Amino acid sequence: MKLLRVGSAGAERPALLDADGVLRDLSGLVPDIDGALLADEAALARVRDAEAGGALPRLDGESLRVGAPLGRIGKIVCIGLNYHDHATETGAKIPAEPILFMKAPDTVVGPDDTVLVPRGSEKTDWEVELAVVIGRTARYLESEEAALAAVAGYAIAHDVSERAFQIERGGQWDKGKNCETFNPLGPWLVTADEVPDPQALGLRLWVNGELKQNGTTAEQIFPVAEVVRYLSQFMTLYPGDVINTGTPAGVAMGQPDPKPYLRAGDVVELEIDGLGRQRQAFKSA
Amino acid sequence: MKLLRVGSAGAERPALLDADGVLRDLSGLVPDIDGALLADEAALARVRDAEAGGALPRLDGESLRVGAPLGRIGKIVCIGLNYHDHATETGAKIPAEPILFMKAPDTVVGPDDTVLVPRGSEKTDWEVELAVVIGRTARYLESEEAALAAVAGYAIAHDVSERAFQIERGGQWDKGKNCETFNPLGPWLVTADEVPDPQALGLRLWVNGELKQNGTTAEQIFPVAEVVRYLSQFMTLYPGDVINTGTPAGVAMGQPDPKPYLRAGDVVELEIDGLGRQRQAFKSA
Repeated sequence: MKLLRVGSAGAERPALLDADGVLRDLSGLVPDIDGALLADEAALARVRDAEAGGALPRLDGESLRVGAPLGRIGKIVCIGLNYHDHATETGAKIPAEPILFMKAPDTVVGPDDTVLVPRGSEKTDWEVELAVVIGRTARYLESEEAALAAVAGYAIAHDVSERAFQIERGGQWDKGKNCETFNPLGPWLVTADEVPDPQALGLRLWVNGELKQNGTTAEQIFPVAEVVRYLSQFMTLYPGDVINTGTPAGVAMGQPDPKPYLRAGDVVELEIDGLGRQRQAFKSA
Repeated sequence: MKLLRVGSAGAERPALLDADGVLRDLSGLVPDIDGALLADEAALARVRDAEAGGALPRLDGESLRVGAPLGRIGKIVCIGLNYHDHATETGAKIPAEPILFMKAPDTVVGPDDTVLVPRGSEKTDWEVELAVVIGRTARYLESEEAALAAVAGYAIAHDVSERAFQIERGGQWDKGKNCETFNPLGPWLVTADEVPDPQALGLRLWVNGELKQNGTTAEQIFPVAEVVRYLSQFMTLYPGDVINTGTPAGVAMGQPDPKPYLRAGDVVELEIDGLGRQRQAFKSA
Protein backbone atom coordinates (compact mmCIF):
# COMPACT_ATOMS: atom_id res chain seq x y z
CA MET A 1 0.00 0.00 0.00
CA LYS A 2 0.96 3.60 -0.53
CA LEU A 3 -0.06 5.41 2.65
CA LEU A 4 0.05 9.17 2.89
CA ARG A 5 -1.24 12.15 4.83
CA VAL A 6 -2.90 15.11 3.16
CA GLY A 7 -4.10 18.48 4.35
CA SER A 8 -2.63 21.52 6.00
CA ALA A 9 0.47 21.19 8.16
CA GLY A 10 -0.37 19.80 11.57
CA ALA A 11 -3.90 18.82 10.48
CA GLU A 12 -3.19 16.10 7.91
CA ARG A 13 -5.67 13.31 7.40
CA PRO A 14 -4.71 9.72 6.55
CA ALA A 15 -5.12 8.61 2.96
CA LEU A 16 -4.16 5.90 0.53
CA LEU A 17 -3.12 6.01 -3.10
CA ASP A 18 -4.81 3.00 -4.68
CA ALA A 19 -3.53 0.75 -7.45
CA ASP A 20 -5.20 2.99 -10.04
CA GLY A 21 -3.54 6.11 -8.66
CA VAL A 22 -6.75 7.34 -7.05
CA LEU A 23 -6.48 9.08 -3.70
CA ARG A 24 -8.69 7.45 -1.06
CA ASP A 25 -9.72 8.82 2.33
CA LEU A 26 -8.72 6.67 5.33
CA SER A 27 -9.95 9.05 8.01
CA GLY A 28 -13.10 7.02 8.59
CA LEU A 29 -11.02 3.92 9.21
CA VAL A 30 -7.90 4.97 11.13
CA PRO A 31 -7.05 8.11 13.11
CA ASP A 32 -3.64 8.67 11.53
CA ILE A 33 -0.66 7.06 9.82
CA ASP A 34 1.67 6.61 12.77
CA GLY A 35 3.57 4.04 14.78
CA ALA A 36 0.40 2.85 16.50
CA LEU A 37 -1.17 2.01 13.15
CA LEU A 38 1.96 0.37 11.77
CA ALA A 39 2.21 -1.86 14.85
CA ASP A 40 -1.45 -2.86 14.59
CA GLU A 41 -1.72 -5.69 12.09
CA ALA A 42 -5.50 -5.91 12.46
CA ALA A 43 -5.94 -2.23 11.62
CA LEU A 44 -3.61 -2.54 8.62
CA ALA A 45 -5.63 -5.57 7.47
CA ARG A 46 -8.83 -3.52 7.70
CA VAL A 47 -7.26 -0.88 5.47
CA ARG A 48 -6.16 -3.53 2.96
CA ASP A 49 -9.60 -5.14 2.96
CA ALA A 50 -11.34 -1.80 2.53
CA GLU A 51 -9.09 -0.97 -0.43
CA ALA A 52 -9.62 -4.40 -2.01
CA GLY A 53 -13.37 -4.15 -1.51
CA GLY A 54 -13.56 -0.70 -3.07
CA ALA A 55 -15.00 0.65 0.17
CA LEU A 56 -12.78 3.71 0.53
CA PRO A 57 -14.22 7.10 -0.42
CA ARG A 58 -12.40 9.01 -3.13
CA LEU A 59 -10.56 12.15 -2.06
CA ASP A 60 -10.20 15.12 -4.36
CA GLY A 61 -6.46 15.52 -4.00
CA GLU A 62 -5.90 18.21 -6.60
CA SER A 63 -5.84 21.06 -4.15
CA LEU A 64 -4.53 19.19 -1.15
CA ARG A 65 -1.07 19.64 0.30
CA VAL A 66 0.78 16.38 0.86
CA GLY A 67 2.29 16.14 4.32
CA ALA A 68 4.90 13.75 5.65
CA PRO A 69 3.40 10.25 5.47
CA LEU A 70 4.02 9.53 9.16
CA GLY A 71 2.79 11.38 12.24
CA ARG A 72 4.15 11.32 15.79
CA ILE A 73 7.62 10.21 14.69
CA GLY A 74 9.54 8.98 17.72
CA LYS A 75 13.10 9.47 16.55
CA ILE A 76 15.07 9.74 13.33
CA VAL A 77 18.33 7.83 13.30
CA CYS A 78 20.64 8.56 10.39
CA ILE A 79 23.49 6.55 8.93
CA GLY A 80 26.47 8.52 7.65
CA LEU A 81 28.74 7.65 4.73
CA ASN A 82 26.74 4.51 3.88
CA TYR A 83 27.40 4.45 0.12
CA HIS A 84 30.73 3.40 -1.34
CA ASP A 85 30.62 6.18 -3.93
CA HIS A 86 29.64 8.90 -1.40
CA ALA A 87 32.35 7.90 1.09
CA THR A 88 34.87 8.11 -1.74
CA GLU A 89 33.72 11.53 -2.97
CA THR A 90 34.01 13.04 0.51
CA GLY A 91 37.51 11.64 0.95
CA ALA A 92 36.40 9.50 3.90
CA LYS A 93 37.49 5.97 4.63
CA ILE A 94 34.90 3.24 4.16
CA PRO A 95 33.41 2.91 7.67
CA ALA A 96 34.09 -0.36 9.48
CA GLU A 97 30.67 -0.13 11.12
CA PRO A 98 27.72 2.22 10.63
CA ILE A 99 28.21 5.87 11.60
CA LEU A 100 25.17 7.09 13.48
CA PHE A 101 23.73 10.54 14.04
CA MET A 102 20.26 11.93 14.70
CA LYS A 103 17.68 14.38 13.45
CA ALA A 104 14.79 15.62 15.59
CA PRO A 105 11.30 14.69 14.37
CA ASP A 106 10.46 18.42 14.34
CA THR A 107 12.69 18.83 11.27
CA VAL A 108 10.22 16.81 9.19
CA VAL A 109 8.08 18.57 6.58
CA GLY A 110 6.04 17.40 3.63
CA PRO A 111 7.72 16.27 0.40
CA ASP A 112 6.88 19.49 -1.46
CA ASP A 113 7.08 21.98 1.39
CA THR A 114 9.45 24.92 1.38
CA VAL A 115 12.90 24.24 2.83
CA LEU A 116 14.65 27.08 4.63
CA VAL A 117 18.33 27.86 4.14
CA PRO A 118 19.47 28.71 7.70
CA ARG A 119 20.62 32.23 8.51
CA GLY A 120 24.34 32.49 8.08
CA SER A 121 24.48 29.33 6.00
CA GLU A 122 26.97 29.10 3.17
CA LYS A 123 27.05 25.31 2.80
CA THR A 124 23.50 23.97 2.67
CA ASP A 125 23.69 20.65 0.86
CA TRP A 126 21.30 18.02 -0.50
CA GLU A 127 21.12 14.27 0.21
CA VAL A 128 18.53 11.92 -1.26
CA GLU A 129 18.02 8.96 1.08
CA LEU A 130 15.98 5.83 1.49
CA ALA A 131 14.03 6.18 4.74
CA VAL A 132 13.08 3.03 6.62
CA VAL A 133 9.98 3.21 8.81
CA ILE A 134 9.86 0.87 11.81
CA GLY A 135 6.67 -1.11 12.49
CA ARG A 136 7.72 -3.47 15.27
CA THR A 137 9.88 -2.89 18.33
CA ALA A 138 13.46 -3.86 17.50
CA ARG A 139 15.73 -4.64 20.45
CA TYR A 140 18.93 -6.71 20.31
CA LEU A 141 17.86 -8.41 17.09
CA GLU A 142 19.90 -11.46 16.25
CA SER A 143 19.39 -11.74 12.51
CA GLU A 144 18.82 -9.71 9.38
CA GLU A 145 15.57 -11.63 8.89
CA ALA A 146 14.28 -10.33 12.24
CA ALA A 147 15.45 -6.87 11.22
CA LEU A 148 13.50 -6.84 7.97
CA ALA A 149 10.44 -8.12 9.84
CA ALA A 150 10.60 -4.94 11.97
CA VAL A 151 10.37 -2.72 8.88
CA ALA A 152 6.87 -1.40 8.13
CA GLY A 153 7.80 0.38 4.93
CA TYR A 154 9.91 2.85 3.03
CA ALA A 155 9.82 6.48 1.95
CA ILE A 156 12.00 9.15 0.40
CA ALA A 157 13.84 11.36 2.90
CA HIS A 158 15.75 14.48 2.01
CA ASP A 159 18.52 14.67 4.61
CA VAL A 160 19.25 18.37 4.12
CA SER A 161 22.62 19.21 5.69
CA GLU A 162 24.56 22.36 6.50
CA ARG A 163 28.18 21.27 6.06
CA ALA A 164 29.84 24.14 7.92
CA PHE A 165 27.51 23.62 10.90
CA GLN A 166 28.05 19.85 10.62
CA ILE A 167 31.83 19.77 10.34
CA GLU A 168 33.42 23.15 11.10
CA ARG A 169 31.60 24.30 14.22
CA GLY A 170 33.19 22.33 17.00
CA GLY A 171 31.46 19.09 17.04
CA GLN A 172 29.04 16.41 16.32
CA TRP A 173 27.30 16.25 12.97
CA ASP A 174 23.88 16.77 14.58
CA LYS A 175 24.66 20.51 14.62
CA GLY A 176 24.29 20.70 10.84
CA LYS A 177 21.42 18.27 10.52
CA ASN A 178 18.69 19.73 12.71
CA CYS A 179 17.82 23.09 11.20
CA GLU A 180 14.07 23.64 10.78
CA THR A 181 12.53 22.01 7.65
CA PHE A 182 15.68 19.92 7.08
CA ASN A 183 13.89 16.59 6.63
CA PRO A 184 11.27 16.49 3.85
CA LEU A 185 9.65 13.03 3.99
CA GLY A 186 7.33 11.28 1.57
CA PRO A 187 5.14 11.57 -0.43
CA TRP A 188 4.23 7.99 0.45
CA LEU A 189 4.99 5.41 3.06
CA VAL A 190 5.15 2.34 0.81
CA THR A 191 4.57 -0.82 2.84
CA ALA A 192 7.41 -3.31 2.83
CA ASP A 193 5.46 -5.96 0.91
CA GLU A 194 5.62 -3.65 -2.13
CA VAL A 195 9.40 -3.24 -1.88
CA PRO A 196 10.66 -6.79 -2.43
CA ASP A 197 14.34 -5.76 -2.50
CA PRO A 198 15.32 -2.55 -0.70
CA GLN A 199 18.85 -3.00 -2.10
CA ALA A 200 17.75 -2.57 -5.71
CA LEU A 201 16.29 0.94 -5.71
CA GLY A 202 17.49 3.77 -7.91
CA LEU A 203 17.76 7.18 -6.18
CA ARG A 204 17.95 10.43 -8.11
CA LEU A 205 18.17 14.11 -7.17
CA TRP A 206 18.07 17.20 -9.35
CA VAL A 207 18.94 20.82 -8.51
CA ASN A 208 17.22 23.34 -10.78
CA GLY A 209 16.58 20.54 -13.26
CA GLU A 210 20.15 19.27 -13.38
CA LEU A 211 20.73 15.67 -12.28
CA LYS A 212 23.14 15.70 -9.32
CA GLN A 213 22.70 12.30 -7.67
CA ASN A 214 21.96 9.13 -9.60
CA GLY A 215 22.66 6.16 -7.38
CA THR A 216 21.33 2.84 -6.27
CA THR A 217 20.83 1.25 -2.88
CA ALA A 218 22.92 -1.63 -4.22
CA GLU A 219 25.87 0.67 -3.36
CA GLN A 220 24.99 0.74 0.36
CA ILE A 221 27.90 -0.38 2.51
CA PHE A 222 25.48 -1.57 5.21
CA PRO A 223 22.20 -2.72 3.72
CA VAL A 224 18.85 -1.98 5.35
CA ALA A 225 18.62 -5.31 7.19
CA GLU A 226 22.10 -4.92 8.65
CA VAL A 227 21.46 -1.28 9.61
CA VAL A 228 18.33 -2.21 11.55
CA ARG A 229 20.00 -5.21 13.20
CA TYR A 230 23.07 -3.15 14.10
CA LEU A 231 21.11 -0.18 15.50
CA SER A 232 19.05 -2.50 17.68
CA GLN A 233 22.24 -3.38 19.62
CA PHE A 234 22.68 0.28 20.65
CA MET A 235 19.13 1.50 21.07
CA THR A 236 15.59 0.21 20.96
CA LEU A 237 13.73 1.05 17.77
CA TYR A 238 10.00 1.56 18.18
CA PRO A 239 7.06 1.64 15.73
CA GLY A 240 7.03 5.09 14.18
CA ASP A 241 10.80 5.54 14.29
CA VAL A 242 12.56 6.42 11.02
CA ILE A 243 16.03 5.53 9.77
CA ASN A 244 17.64 7.65 7.05
CA THR A 245 19.99 5.12 5.48
CA GLY A 246 22.55 7.42 3.87
CA THR A 247 23.07 9.12 0.54
CA PRO A 248 24.84 8.13 -2.69
CA ALA A 249 27.51 10.24 -4.43
CA GLY A 250 26.78 13.60 -5.97
CA VAL A 251 26.32 16.00 -3.06
CA ALA A 252 27.59 19.57 -3.31
CA MET A 253 30.37 18.86 -0.79
CA GLY A 254 31.82 16.30 -3.20
CA GLN A 255 32.07 18.69 -6.16
CA PRO A 256 35.11 20.72 -7.23
CA ASP A 257 35.36 24.32 -5.94
CA PRO A 258 33.39 26.49 -6.01
CA LYS A 259 30.99 23.91 -4.59
CA PRO A 260 27.39 24.51 -5.69
CA TYR A 261 25.74 24.76 -2.27
CA LEU A 262 22.05 25.57 -2.15
CA ARG A 263 20.73 29.14 -2.08
CA ALA A 264 17.29 30.68 -1.73
CA GLY A 265 15.55 30.32 -5.08
CA ASP A 266 16.93 26.86 -5.83
CA VAL A 267 14.55 23.99 -6.51
CA VAL A 268 15.46 20.44 -5.53
CA GLU A 269 13.64 17.37 -6.83
CA LEU A 270 14.15 13.83 -5.53
CA GLU A 271 12.96 10.43 -6.66
CA ILE A 272 13.37 6.82 -5.57
CA ASP A 273 12.07 3.90 -7.64
CA GLY A 274 8.55 3.08 -6.52
CA LEU A 275 8.51 5.63 -3.70
CA GLY A 276 7.39 8.72 -5.60
CA ARG A 277 8.90 12.14 -6.02
CA GLN A 278 9.59 15.28 -3.96
CA ARG A 279 10.03 18.88 -5.03
CA GLN A 280 11.17 21.66 -2.70
CA ALA A 281 11.67 25.34 -3.29
CA PHE A 282 14.43 26.75 -1.06
CA LYS A 283 13.92 30.07 0.69
CA SER A 284 15.79 32.06 3.32
CA ALA A 285 15.05 31.40 7.00
CA MET B 1 6.36 25.51 41.39
CA LYS B 2 7.58 21.94 41.56
CA LEU B 3 5.68 20.06 38.87
CA LEU B 4 5.84 16.31 38.60
CA ARG B 5 4.12 13.26 37.14
CA VAL B 6 3.21 10.27 39.27
CA GLY B 7 1.82 6.82 38.51
CA SER B 8 2.78 3.83 36.45
CA ALA B 9 5.00 4.29 33.40
CA GLY B 10 3.04 5.63 30.45
CA ALA B 11 0.02 6.47 32.65
CA GLU B 12 1.42 9.22 34.85
CA ARG B 13 -0.88 11.94 36.17
CA PRO B 14 0.18 15.56 36.66
CA ALA B 15 0.91 16.67 40.20
CA LEU B 16 2.50 19.43 42.20
CA LEU B 17 4.66 19.40 45.32
CA ASP B 18 3.47 22.32 47.36
CA ALA B 19 5.50 24.63 49.59
CA ASP B 20 4.82 22.36 52.57
CA GLY B 21 6.07 19.31 50.70
CA VAL B 22 2.57 17.93 50.22
CA LEU B 23 1.81 16.19 46.94
CA ARG B 24 -1.21 17.71 45.17
CA ASP B 25 -3.22 16.29 42.29
CA LEU B 26 -3.33 18.45 39.14
CA SER B 27 -5.26 16.00 36.99
CA GLY B 28 -8.52 17.91 37.49
CA LEU B 29 -6.87 21.08 36.23
CA VAL B 30 -4.50 20.14 33.39
CA PRO B 31 -4.23 17.01 31.23
CA ASP B 32 -0.46 16.60 31.61
CA ILE B 33 2.84 18.35 32.28
CA ASP B 34 4.07 18.86 28.74
CA GLY B 35 5.12 21.50 26.23
CA ALA B 36 1.52 22.55 25.64
CA LEU B 37 1.08 23.35 29.33
CA LEU B 38 4.43 25.12 29.62
CA ALA B 39 3.57 27.34 26.65
CA ASP B 40 0.15 28.19 28.10
CA GLU B 41 0.60 31.02 30.58
CA ALA B 42 -3.09 31.09 31.44
CA ALA B 43 -3.08 27.40 32.36
CA LEU B 44 0.07 27.83 34.45
CA ALA B 45 -1.57 30.77 36.20
CA ARG B 46 -4.60 28.60 37.00
CA VAL B 47 -2.28 26.05 38.60
CA ARG B 48 -0.54 28.74 40.63
CA ASP B 49 -3.84 30.21 41.75
CA ALA B 50 -5.23 26.83 42.71
CA GLU B 51 -2.12 26.10 44.76
CA ALA B 52 -2.23 29.50 46.46
CA GLY B 53 -5.93 29.10 47.18
CA GLY B 54 -5.48 25.67 48.73
CA ALA B 55 -7.80 24.23 46.10
CA LEU B 56 -5.71 21.28 45.01
CA PRO B 57 -6.64 17.85 46.37
CA ARG B 58 -3.97 16.03 48.33
CA LEU B 59 -2.46 12.96 46.70
CA ASP B 60 -1.25 10.02 48.74
CA GLY B 61 2.19 9.75 47.18
CA GLU B 62 3.67 7.10 49.44
CA SER B 63 3.02 4.25 47.09
CA LEU B 64 3.22 6.16 43.83
CA ARG B 65 6.03 5.83 41.33
CA VAL B 66 7.47 9.15 40.23
CA GLY B 67 7.76 9.43 36.46
CA ALA B 68 9.70 11.91 34.38
CA PRO B 69 8.21 15.36 35.06
CA LEU B 70 7.58 16.06 31.38
CA GLY B 71 5.48 14.15 28.85
CA ARG B 72 5.62 14.23 25.05
CA ILE B 73 9.21 15.49 24.98
CA GLY B 74 10.02 16.77 21.48
CA LYS B 75 13.77 16.42 21.44
CA ILE B 76 16.69 16.25 23.84
CA VAL B 77 19.71 18.29 22.84
CA CYS B 78 22.86 17.68 24.84
CA ILE B 79 25.96 19.79 25.33
CA GLY B 80 29.26 17.94 25.54
CA LEU B 81 32.31 18.93 27.60
CA ASN B 82 30.59 21.98 29.06
CA TYR B 83 32.41 22.11 32.40
CA HIS B 84 35.99 23.28 32.69
CA ASP B 85 36.83 20.52 35.18
CA HIS B 86 35.21 17.74 33.08
CA ALA B 87 36.92 18.84 29.87
CA THR B 88 40.23 18.73 31.73
CA GLU B 89 39.65 15.28 33.25
CA THR B 90 38.86 13.75 29.86
CA GLY B 91 41.98 15.27 28.32
CA ALA B 92 39.88 17.34 25.90
CA LYS B 93 40.55 20.93 24.87
CA ILE B 94 38.15 23.57 26.16
CA PRO B 95 35.59 23.82 23.32
CA ALA B 96 35.52 27.12 21.42
CA GLU B 97 31.77 26.73 20.95
CA PRO B 98 29.24 24.28 22.37
CA ILE B 99 29.52 20.65 21.27
CA LEU B 100 26.08 19.30 20.47
CA PHE B 101 24.67 15.79 20.38
CA MET B 102 21.24 14.26 20.87
CA LYS B 103 19.29 11.73 22.85
CA ALA B 104 15.93 10.37 21.77
CA PRO B 105 12.98 11.15 24.05
CA ASP B 106 12.33 7.41 24.34
CA THR B 107 15.46 7.10 26.51
CA VAL B 108 13.71 9.03 29.29
CA VAL B 109 12.60 7.20 32.42
CA GLY B 110 11.59 8.32 35.90
CA PRO B 111 14.18 9.52 38.42
CA ASP B 112 14.10 6.30 40.44
CA ASP B 113 13.47 3.80 37.67
CA THR B 114 15.83 0.95 36.88
CA VAL B 115 18.61 1.76 34.40
CA LEU B 116 19.77 -1.03 32.11
CA VAL B 117 23.44 -1.67 31.39
CA PRO B 118 23.41 -2.49 27.64
CA ARG B 119 24.36 -5.97 26.48
CA GLY B 120 28.04 -6.09 25.67
CA SER B 121 28.71 -2.90 27.62
CA GLU B 122 31.98 -2.56 29.50
CA LYS B 123 32.02 1.22 29.84
CA THR B 124 28.65 2.42 31.12
CA ASP B 125 29.28 5.77 32.80
CA TRP B 126 27.37 8.30 34.88
CA GLU B 127 26.82 12.04 34.28
CA VAL B 128 24.75 14.30 36.53
CA GLU B 129 23.40 17.22 34.49
CA LEU B 130 21.22 20.27 34.79
CA ALA B 131 18.33 19.83 32.34
CA VAL B 132 16.71 22.92 30.88
CA VAL B 133 13.07 22.60 29.82
CA ILE B 134 11.89 24.92 27.04
CA GLY B 135 8.59 26.78 27.43
CA ARG B 136 8.59 29.15 24.48
CA THR B 137 9.66 28.64 20.88
CA ALA B 138 13.29 29.75 20.51
CA ARG B 139 14.46 30.60 16.99
CA TYR B 140 17.45 32.80 16.11
CA LEU B 141 17.41 34.47 19.51
CA GLU B 142 19.48 37.61 19.67
CA SER B 143 20.20 37.90 23.38
CA GLU B 144 20.76 35.86 26.50
CA GLU B 145 17.75 37.65 28.04
CA ALA B 146 15.51 36.28 25.29
CA ALA B 147 17.08 32.88 25.84
CA LEU B 148 16.28 32.81 29.55
CA ALA B 149 12.73 33.94 28.76
CA ALA B 150 12.32 30.76 26.68
CA VAL B 151 13.19 28.54 29.67
CA ALA B 152 10.18 27.10 31.50
CA GLY B 153 12.16 25.38 34.20
CA TYR B 154 14.87 22.99 35.31
CA ALA B 155 15.27 19.38 36.34
CA ILE B 156 17.93 16.81 37.08
CA ALA B 157 18.95 14.66 34.10
CA HIS B 158 21.17 11.62 34.31
CA ASP B 159 22.95 11.52 30.95
CA VAL B 160 23.95 7.85 31.15
CA SER B 161 26.65 7.14 28.57
CA GLU B 162 28.35 4.06 27.17
CA ARG B 163 31.87 5.29 26.43
CA ALA B 164 32.95 2.48 24.11
CA PHE B 165 29.78 2.89 22.04
CA GLN B 166 30.22 6.68 22.16
CA ILE B 167 33.88 6.89 21.19
CA GLU B 168 35.29 3.58 19.95
CA ARG B 169 32.59 2.34 17.57
CA GLY B 170 33.13 4.35 14.45
CA GLY B 171 31.35 7.52 14.97
CA GLN B 172 29.19 10.11 16.46
CA TRP B 173 28.61 10.22 20.19
CA ASP B 174 24.88 9.56 19.77
CA LYS B 175 25.75 5.85 19.46
CA GLY B 176 26.64 5.67 23.16
CA LYS B 177 23.94 8.00 24.41
CA ASN B 178 20.69 6.42 23.20
CA CYS B 179 20.50 3.04 24.90
CA GLU B 180 17.11 2.35 26.50
CA THR B 181 16.59 3.93 29.96
CA PHE B 182 19.67 6.15 29.49
CA ASN B 183 18.00 9.42 30.53
CA PRO B 184 16.42 9.42 34.00
CA LEU B 185 14.71 12.81 34.41
CA GLY B 186 13.21 14.49 37.47
CA PRO B 187 11.82 14.13 40.08
CA TRP B 188 10.52 17.66 39.55
CA LEU B 189 10.29 20.26 36.87
CA VAL B 190 11.06 23.35 38.95
CA THR B 191 9.74 26.46 37.24
CA ALA B 192 12.34 29.07 36.33
CA ASP B 193 11.01 31.65 38.81
CA GLU B 194 12.24 29.36 41.62
CA VAL B 195 15.75 29.11 40.16
CA PRO B 196 16.98 32.70 40.30
CA ASP B 197 20.51 31.82 39.17
CA PRO B 198 20.99 28.64 37.13
CA GLN B 199 24.76 29.23 37.31
CA ALA B 200 24.89 28.77 41.07
CA LEU B 201 23.65 25.21 41.53
CA GLY B 202 25.62 22.45 43.19
CA LEU B 203 25.44 19.05 41.46
CA ARG B 204 26.34 15.82 43.20
CA LEU B 205 26.40 12.15 42.23
CA TRP B 206 27.13 9.05 44.30
CA VAL B 207 27.83 5.48 43.22
CA ASN B 208 27.04 2.90 45.88
CA GLY B 209 27.11 5.70 48.45
CA GLU B 210 30.48 7.10 47.42
CA LEU B 211 30.54 10.71 46.23
CA LYS B 212 31.87 10.76 42.64
CA GLN B 213 30.78 14.13 41.24
CA ASN B 214 30.59 17.28 43.33
CA GLY B 215 30.40 20.26 41.02
CA THR B 216 28.66 23.53 40.43
CA THR B 217 27.04 25.05 37.38
CA ALA B 218 29.34 28.03 37.98
CA GLU B 219 31.95 25.83 36.21
CA GLN B 220 29.92 25.71 32.98
CA ILE B 221 31.92 26.94 30.01
CA PHE B 222 28.72 28.00 28.23
CA PRO B 223 26.05 29.04 30.73
CA VAL B 224 22.38 28.16 30.27
CA ALA B 225 21.44 31.46 28.62
CA GLU B 226 24.27 31.20 26.10
CA VAL B 227 23.51 27.53 25.38
CA VAL B 228 19.88 28.34 24.56
CA ARG B 229 20.81 31.39 22.47
CA TYR B 230 23.49 29.44 20.62
CA LEU B 231 21.31 26.40 19.91
CA SER B 232 18.57 28.61 18.52
CA GLN B 233 20.93 29.61 15.67
CA PHE B 234 21.14 25.97 14.53
CA MET B 235 17.69 24.60 15.27
CA THR B 236 14.34 25.75 16.53
CA LEU B 237 13.64 24.86 20.14
CA TYR B 238 10.00 24.20 20.96
CA PRO B 239 8.03 24.03 24.22
CA GLY B 240 8.63 20.58 25.67
CA ASP B 241 12.18 20.27 24.35
CA VAL B 242 14.93 19.48 26.85
CA ILE B 243 18.58 20.52 26.93
CA ASN B 244 21.05 18.48 28.98
CA THR B 245 23.69 21.11 29.72
CA GLY B 246 26.72 18.92 30.40
CA THR B 247 28.36 17.27 33.38
CA PRO B 248 31.05 18.34 35.86
CA ALA B 249 34.21 16.36 36.62
CA GLY B 250 34.14 12.98 38.32
CA VAL B 251 32.85 10.55 35.69
CA ALA B 252 34.29 7.01 35.49
CA MET B 253 36.07 7.82 32.21
CA GLY B 254 38.11 10.44 34.04
CA GLN B 255 39.40 8.07 36.76
CA PRO B 256 42.71 6.17 36.75
CA ASP B 257 42.65 2.59 35.44
CA PRO B 258 40.92 0.35 36.13
CA LYS B 259 38.08 2.81 35.58
CA PRO B 260 35.06 2.09 37.78
CA TYR B 261 32.41 1.75 35.08
CA LEU B 262 28.91 0.80 36.15
CA ARG B 263 27.77 -2.81 36.48
CA ALA B 264 24.47 -4.49 37.25
CA GLY B 265 23.90 -4.16 40.98
CA ASP B 266 25.31 -0.67 41.27
CA VAL B 267 23.16 2.11 42.71
CA VAL B 268 23.57 5.70 41.52
CA GLU B 269 22.15 8.70 43.35
CA LEU B 270 22.06 12.25 41.98
CA GLU B 271 21.17 15.61 43.46
CA ILE B 272 21.07 19.22 42.31
CA ASP B 273 20.41 22.11 44.70
CA GLY B 274 16.67 22.80 44.79
CA LEU B 275 15.84 20.22 42.11
CA GLY B 276 15.51 17.10 44.25
CA ARG B 277 17.19 13.74 44.14
CA GLN B 278 17.30 10.63 41.94
CA ARG B 279 18.21 7.04 42.79
CA GLN B 280 18.64 4.30 40.20
CA ALA B 281 19.45 0.63 40.58
CA PHE B 282 21.39 -0.66 37.57
CA LYS B 283 20.48 -4.02 36.04
CA SER B 284 21.48 -5.94 32.95
CA ALA B 285 19.55 -5.33 29.72
